[in-house]
Amino acid sequence: MTGGGLAAAPMALVDRFWQYEEALMADDLESLDALFADDETTLRADSTGLMVGADRIRQFRRGRGGADARRIVGVQTRRISDDCWLTVGESITASGGRGVQTQLWTRDAERGWQITAAHVTGPVMAIDRSVWRVLGTPLAAPHSEGPLDGRTVAVKDLFAVEGHRIGAGVPGYLETAGVELKHAAAVASLLDHGASVLGIAQTDQFAYSIAGRNAHYGTPPNPACRGAISGGSSSGPASAVALGQADIGLASDTAGSIRVPASYQGLWGLRTTHGAVPMAGTLPLAPSFDTVGWLTRDGATLRDAAAVSLPGRGRRSIGTAAAELVIDRDLVEQAEDAVVAAFDLAVSRLERPVTVISLEGGAASEAFPGSYYDAFRLVQAAEAWESHGRWITEHPGLVTGDVADRFADAQRVDAEQQEAARRTLHAARARWEEVLGGRVLLLPSAASAAPPVDAPDAMIQRVRTATLTMTCVAGILARPALSVPALETDEGPVGLCLVGPQDTDLALVDLGEEIHRECGVGSTGGRCP
Amino acid sequence: MTGGGLAAAPMALVDRFWQYEEALMADDLESLDALFADDETTLRADSTGLMVGADRIRQFRRGRGGADARRIVGVQTRRISDDCWLTVGESITASGGRGVQTQLWTRDAERGWQITAAHVTGPVMAIDRSVWRVLGTPLAAPHSEGPLDGRTVAVKDLFAVEGHRIGAGVPGYLETAGVELKHAAAVASLLDHGASVLGIAQTDQFAYSIAGRNAHYGTPPNPACRGAISGGSSSGPASAVALGQADIGLASDTAGSIRVPASYQGLWGLRTTHGAVPMAGTLPLAPSFDTVGWLTRDGATLRDAAAVSLPGRGRRSIGTAAAELVIDRDLVEQAEDAVVAAFDLAVSRLERPVTVISLEGGAASEAFPGSYYDAFRLVQAAEAWESHGRWITEHPGLVTGDVADRFADAQRVDAEQQEAARRTLHAARARWEEVLGGRVLLLPSAASAAPPVDAPDAMIQRVRTATLTMTCVAGILARPALSVPALETDEGPVGLCLVGPQDTDLALVDLGEEIHRECGVGSTGGRCP
Repeated sequence: MTGGGLAAAPMALVDRFWQYEEALMADDLESLDALFADDETTLRADSTGLMVGADRIRQFRRGRGGADARRIVGVQTRRISDDCWLTVGESITASGGRGVQTQLWTRDAERGWQITAAHVTGPVMAIDRSVWRVLGTPLAAPHSEGPLDGRTVAVKDLFAVEGHRIGAGVPGYLETAGVELKHAAAVASLLDHGASVLGIAQTDQFAYSIAGRNAHYGTPPNPACRGAISGGSSSGPASAVALGQADIGLASDTAGSIRVPASYQGLWGLRTTHGAVPMAGTLPLAPSFDTVGWLTRDGATLRDAAAVSLPGRGRRSIGTAAAELVIDRDLVEQAEDAVVAAFDLAVSRLERPVTVISLEGGAASEAFPGSYYDAFRLVQAAEAWESHGRWITEHPGLVTGDVADRFADAQRVDAEQQEAARRTLHAARARWEEVLGGRVLLLPSAASAAPPVDAPDAMIQRVRTATLTMTCVAGILARPALSVPALETDEGPVGLCLVGPQDTDLALVDLGEEIHRECGVGSTGGRCP
Repeated sequence: MTGGGLAAAPMALVDRFWQYEEALMADDLESLDALFADDETTLRADSTGLMVGADRIRQFRRGRGGADARRIVGVQTRRISDDCWLTVGESITASGGRGVQTQLWTRDAERGWQITAAHVTGPVMAIDRSVWRVLGTPLAAPHSEGPLDGRTVAVKDLFAVEGHRIGAGVPGYLETAGVELKHAAAVASLLDHGASVLGIAQTDQFAYSIAGRNAHYGTPPNPACRGAISGGSSSGPASAVALGQADIGLASDTAGSIRVPASYQGLWGLRTTHGAVPMAGTLPLAPSFDTVGWLTRDGATLRDAAAVSLPGRGRRSIGTAAAELVIDRDLVEQAEDAVVAAFDLAVSRLERPVTVISLEGGAASEAFPGSYYDAFRLVQAAEAWESHGRWITEHPGLVTGDVADRFADAQRVDAEQQEAARRTLHAARARWEEVLGGRVLLLPSAASAAPPVDAPDAMIQRVRTATLTMTCVAGILARPALSVPALETDEGPVGLCLVGPQDTDLALVDLGEEIHRECGVGSTGGRCP
């Protein structure tokens, strides 16, 4: 192979090389599109993975909002043939960081030199603030050896870590928070058994969202589904685990905040039986539904984390040796068609009977004219306002966007409404307990795969409602719910959710591992198109 | 361009692709070497930059100690010609992180398919523990607006950051340290003028080294000189700034701990006049020589950091408008030949007279049979033991390697030796003050470019002695010393050092900027071969 610096390359290619740099700095999308071959085989790789096809690359470029300012400080060129050269450019960004870009250029009779494959490496950030708020080496060391030796924890920014403040995804709240004098109970359990805390990871504002789009810190990456939202509110812990930066995400789930990001990112996630893990040192959202849980890349780590954190609870077995599984079609069909299809495929592979039941959960009652979902949402809102209304009132404007709107609605819930909604939930729970008994309910963990980061708010809102209609069932029942990465759609992974009887948390993880094996799919490392 | 998955590629290439993965996982260096074209045009890029030539790549591979375990989860292949294909593989590492690798394969009649260019992206770490101990977003917010608005600081782990402990590069010390209740004075000055603290950055153990090789946390990368040591003891702040992760490295310099990493990494670095910046809240090493200072990528930021931190001191002008520059050949020639040549070249470009003087610093006296360097080292050792001897005695084995050896030697310094050495330093200082007067001494900031990370200890020791012989002059004189990135050697950048009269700190930076312009070279982003 021959080559050298830029001078060795054909003039027309050199021109194109600099045209590309100029277009990139100007975020001139039309020129950038024209400099990449308009072909489904065109490739672009970077630290978030590989994009295939000019369409996908164009779409990425439109969502990026321009590249960091950089100047080229060196170029190597290599001749492959008269019509094909490789260039490798080294650059320094305005912030002082260094980058390197490999570009394969092919000459087309009509269009001249175009990039047919590119691999780009930008400067390494010290800390990705969309994922982490504080990081250490470690931030908190293990208290003793145990089954979690060597495992690192990303702690959702709702849990007290000794010596640090709780930020709850709201910079203004962080400023007013005091330094925590002891670890939250759920943090201490992990440290007591060998784990170390790597850092404090981001959450949606006051955990009152399932999207993961934090306006203050940004949306964490979803490595299982490039360009899609992370899911929330345990967005930071989920992304940290999916990225391989931490082994365990310590998180909370009120209405789906563990199961949704687990579903969107191809992870395992457990919402524990309500009350089974002490909430001491954890910022509440809606105490009637708040639970602690974990996000992991595999079932074994999840089981270990749960086992050390549930010393006295969550250890009941699930009735018979082969637990009876049930599904409710109305509930399943809240999900999008592709998810229902993936769910049905997974269920068809199970080597155990699945019984169809009906929870009849959607019916309105005389006392409360809405659905169980409306009732859940209303009680959650009332309790969320009880938890944070005073601070929000005293600090106007510091909570923003859809979360601010939700708190504004929450403030308007009156005692009578709340009482009616609680009666509805009480009735739903009694009816469902009777129907389910000791059986395990199967449903998708979310109504869809992760929506794109740039999805319209209306779409986010639609899948939010559909997803919460499904996830809030476990909340109303106070039952544990496990999300297993067992469904695949063209739009990305979705979790298979198992809602078990109360205090069967560990048995539920065991059952989830069996079901994961039976389904024969799972976290394949697949990536959205 | 045609292609698809791995199935689209020629069988012989597919075999080689998997041979490469197998060899990589086994760290089978011979096979890996054979799979890369043995040619000076062969390329390999990753997040640390670009390597050119099979020799350089082989050398890197030998120093790496194996790649992280990974499995390929997807491959795209593209046909360029019968004899040239591109493959792009996506992988998941054992730790759950994701990677992508672009490989250009060329078929040689004799050797078959070989890689002629590769670009590799591995998983992104949450925190690089060789550079940082704690990171935040920010870790400490600005106290008010000012000239440093928007600038981020990497604080060497010797300075108190409120709410955090001082670790001093020794994990065992960190464990015994209390939480700091207020910021060090030098930290507060920066926060008071708009800067934020991004994190606490690593140091050599108790700052008692100029290499930057910390056995506990690793050697930080040197982005200006791939595969070379960072320089120390302000290794973490220097690398953080060179990587573009922080704008200002807040550091200390006892015997060269700012100037040496600045020199090795192509940065600006200022050691201030002894006593000019208050040491409150800063862990001492040798108080007679300890000073505060900063590392930056440009002179303007350095001047801003110095100006806000030197409110009452460091503001004297340097005598005449065109400061008189002097050099001492004996001192300059402590450096390696390539450095002397680069120094002479830079001096020849200066648009101002340079006078040759003689400090006659090397002469032994009757009272102290060694050189001024020996006397400096001895007093530094005595004070270092005074600072840390008690802790080290009470915590055996927690300080390791060459720093432990140095403390062991320090313990043996007796009062009489120390007294004689102090007299020698006193005499040297008096003589030098007389010779220098208000003039500015020019010399290389270090005796060599940054040695390779895998350099033998004997080589590190040799350049250490030569470098300290040069750097300790400013320490003995209590004068400010500025390292300007103005020398280039084939082995990497070297700093040009300006030692000014006491309290001319700001004027010295201004002079440094003029000289940097006159030399016409500098931090070009160049990289070692």
